[in-house]
Order: sequence, then structure tokens, then C-alpha cells
Amino acid sequence: MPATANPLSRLYNDLKRLGNADLKSPRVTDALVHLCELSLDYIRQHTKMSQLTSRVTGKRYMMAVLNSGAKSSRPINSDLFDIRIARSDMESLMSGNTDNFGEQRLQQVLYTTALSFCIATDVISVGNRKSPGTFFETLVGHLAAIKFGVNPSKTIAIPSLDIENTLPTDLIFDLGTGRAKVHMPVKISTRERVVQAWAHQRVLEGMHGTGRFRGILVILTETNKQKDISVVEVCLPGQWAAYQMYISAMYRVYYFDLPKAYEPLKDRYPFIPVWPFSRFFTEYATIRSPPAT
Amino acid sequence: MPATANPLSRLYNDLKRLGNADLKSPRVTDALVHLCELSLDYIRQHTKMSQLTSRVTGKRYMMAVLNSGAKSSRPINSDLFDIRIARSDMESLMSGNTDNFGEQRLQQVLYTTALSFCIATDVISVGNRKSPGTFFETLVGHLAAIKFGVNPSKTIAIPSLDIENTLPTDLIFDLGTGRAKVHMPVKISTRERVVQAWAHQRVLEGMHGTGRFRGILVILTETNKQKDISVVEVCLPGQWAAYQMYISAMYRVYYFDLPKAYEPLKDRYPFIPVWPFSRFFTEYATIRSPPAT
Repeated sequence: MPATANPLSRLYNDLKRLGNADLKSPRVTDALVHLCELSLDYIRQHTKMSQLTSRVTGKRYMMAVLNSGAKSSRPINSDLFDIRIARSDMESLMSGNTDNFGEQRLQQVLYTTALSFCIATDVISVGNRKSPGTFFETLVGHLAAIKFGVNPSKTIAIPSLDIENTLPTDLIFDLGTGRAKVHMPVKISTRERVVQAWAHQRVLEGMHGTGRFRGILVILTETNKQKDISVVEVCLPGQWAAYQMYISAMYRVYYFDLPKAYEPLKDRYPFIPVWPFSRFFTEYATIRSPPAT
Repeated sequence: MPATANPLSRLYNDLKRLGNADLKSPRVTDALVHLCELSLDYIRQHTKMSQLTSRVTGKRYMMAVLNSGAKSSRPINSDLFDIRIARSDMESLMSGNTDNFGEQRLQQVLYTTALSFCIATDVISVGNRKSPGTFFETLVGHLAAIKFGVNPSKTIAIPSLDIENTLPTDLIFDLGTGRAKVHMPVKISTRERVVQAWAHQRVLEGMHGTGRFRGILVILTETNKQKDISVVEVCLPGQWAAYQMYISAMYRVYYFDLPKAYEPLKDRYPFIPVWPFSRFFTEYATIRSPPAT
């Protein structure tokens, strides 16, 4: 195993550069496919999967452990991760051709590609710790940009009587005149930091009016590996309800691995629509539609 | 130097226990004085001060370096830190007798006691990384509890038509019928996480009405030691303005080491009242007063 060089660095840096230039482009499609494939190759060659004790009802988790035993990865949902995924499946996903997958397979393809680079980075662990977050934002941003047909921006001007100010934001998609704009925070996991998403949505609504922006929060997972090698999901449903009631209303929350404790939130007041991210690919046209009155 | 034992652990654990039992009590006064004194003793015996290159106009910074050279501390404001502080000054502060200090000396006594445990923990670095944050919240909470004459709580019930829910919060002081309540988030530093304070203030106002809670954010410093051993202050004044305009209005922001870039915020729209924490000790009676209409 390499001690100082990270075999994924060059491709990761290429992806970042291409994503900043034109996020929805076929070159980003290719870079994502290459990076995911190289990551999965690394995992297959240098690690073994080891079962974890799942404390989440109905879900099984494992982790990748380096053959040397020196390092292990974050938890991996065994039913969503397909280590033998075909390159053609990744190519279909990354170019936005998702109609033939079926809901369950689409969830697997999404989860496997998203986890690939994160797992490889966990066990290589050379270089900066922010790279899984940047990779994940690039992946989600690319898929959304293809479906929306427009690249996102990451700043917004604050309109005010006598103040010139721009605010750095998460991904903002301007879908054109007469349509809502999309405010899309993208996070690997959230914990207590999740309030940022509701607060930024509130700022956007304060600046531009209610209904002008649809807040769509996209999250990978809330799993946490405990010291005793068991897996839990860290969830704060009561706090989410307070944020949805008193700060702003999220239009959708999408998860790659939807936590059990958040499943009921869409069916009870204040009705936070939490869904698997696979659903985005069938309802993005609804999201693009003009706001109902 | 001790390799595995932390000489401050026992006193720190005592302080936590006593603070949870009765934060404004004389026993917490004593525990704080003891812990600060032991921390300063450790710094005097095991470290030397080394100048840092300050990139902040008008401020000088240094750091404590272990005599072995193995570890160094966070930046220390040379004009606010008095390594030779008298025990009697710490006793006066911790028992709430601050009237005889004068503004500038009060700032030094506050900063020196707050930094003492943080610096010692930086160079000892055994045990958990959360202890400086817990220590600082206990220090600020104790001083505020003495002035307000009441202990804070850390949860609040969410009143709603058909939902039973409690929300964990920062310090909440209930000052009695007819007075505003105080919502006091306490942070070592904030960066982009600062939006939490405005968001939680918004939740409280949404639940209980505007003006019911006065939001008072207390922060130690925003200094950051760069790789080249220079010191900067990480400030986001434009974002603070947006939060104050569109999320909620903070009643006060107090700093132990007030960042240069936040000084002008109190004098221009949206007028965020940012002050040195020393000012709290002369205006706490104003904070306790009934809300103006």
C-alpha cells in the first residue's frame, strides 16, 4: 500500500477542476465514472469486508478493512452497496440515463458510486479530509445539473436599500423566469449542523420572498460507527420538526441511505418530505414546475 | 511532562459536576479559581511564550510552547493575557465582584482566566477535545448566573397544538414574570457555525413571540493560527448582517477578544451590538429590564 502517495489524487483534482468549469458537462460524467471505478478497484484489491453489529432495525452494515488491518472505513449499508457494479451502470447514472434502472437498483447505483470514493479515502487517508464532502457535492450537483439542464451557482447577491453584499451559499439552480429556484445544500451527514440548511433557506426567503426558492437538502447518511464496532443512526427528528415549523419549510430532504427515524416525518405534522434520493429522478419535473399558489 | 495523566482532569471533572448541580454557587466560584490557578501554574512551569506574527492591525499575539518544544498552544492576545494575575483578582471575578476593576483590567482578568485552561489543555492534550468548550461555557454561565441571580436551563418545551417535544438549547435564563428571558449561546469560536445562534433565536421567537427572549451570544475569540505561524481573525461580517436582517435579531454579541472586523457592526445597519464581554458587567441590569415596547 502506498505510504505517501494517494492514487486517487490526480483524478480527484481533475474532477474538481472540471466541475468548477462546467458541472453538467460530459467531461464531468467521464471524470466521475473514472474516479468511482478507480476507487472500487482500490477497495477490491486492498481491503476485505467485515460485518458490523447494526443497531438499526432492518439494516445490515459492514466496513472495508485494509488487508494489513491498519485502517478501516466508515459503515457501509450491505444491501445498498454493490462492489461488483458494472461500469455501464455507472455510465448510465452519470450521464443522467436513469429511467431503466427501477427504484431499487437506482438506489444501489447511487449509493455505491457515492460511497466508492469515500471508502477508498477512509482507508488511504492521505491528503485532506474535506475531499469526500467535495466529491459528494460534485456528484449530486452534476446529477441535478443534468436533470435541470443548468449549472448551479454558489453565491447570491443580497438585495437591499443601501448595502452591497453577496452571500456564499450551497448550490443554487436558477431554472428560469416563472419557475421556482432551487436551493440545494449537500452534506455527507448533518448532526446538529443541519440547522444551517433551514437557516440559509430562511435567509433566501427573507431576501426574495416565500416560495421563490425550493429548499432541497441532499444527505448521504447519518450512520455512526461506535467504539464497540456497532452502527447507529444519529437522528434528531424533534429538532427537525421545530426547524420546519419555526425557521423555514424544506421542500424535500433526500437521503442516499434514509435513516429509520426520519421515515415517519413525511406523514405527520409539520410534514417534512424525506425520501430516498432515487425519487429525485422521477419528480425533478415537479420540482422544476412553477410554484402553486 | 506527564505522558498519560492529565494533571487538570480531576479539578475539571469536579467543576463540571458542581456546575451541573448549582452553577451560580460559591462552590463553582472556588472550583473555577482553583482550575484557573492550576492551569496558569502549569503554563508558568512547563512552557515559554513565543511571539507570533500578527496579521491583525493593532493586536499582538504569542503562543505557549512546551519546554520540550513538543506542543504549542492556540494564539494568545499579549495585551489581554496577564500570566502574573493575582489569585485575589480571580476570586473577585468569579464571585461577581467586578466593580473595582475598571474596564481594561476587567477585560484582562476575563481573558486570562478564560484562556488559562484552554492553553494548558492545548499543550497537555490528554483527554477529550471538548473540555475547553465545556470549561468556557461553565465560566460564562457561572458569571451570568451570579449577575442574574438564577441558574440557566438547557432545554425548552416546544408548545404546540398536538405535539409533545422538548428542544435542547444553549443556556436559557428565566428572569421572572414581566421580564425578557435570556438565550445565551456560548462558543469558543464560531466560523460558519455561528448561524446556529441566529437560527435557535428564531426558533425561540417563533415558539414564544418576538421580544420574549433576548439573544446574547458570547464568544471567546475568532483567532486562527496559520501554518506559517501568523495569526488572523476569521470574520464573516457580511453573513452576520444577513443573519441579523433575515433570521432574527441578536440583542448582544460579546467577545473576550473582540475581532477588528466586527467592531463597526454596531454602528451600521442592521446594527448588531458587538461589544467586549466586560461590558456585560455594567449593562446586565439593562438586559434584565422588561422589554421596551
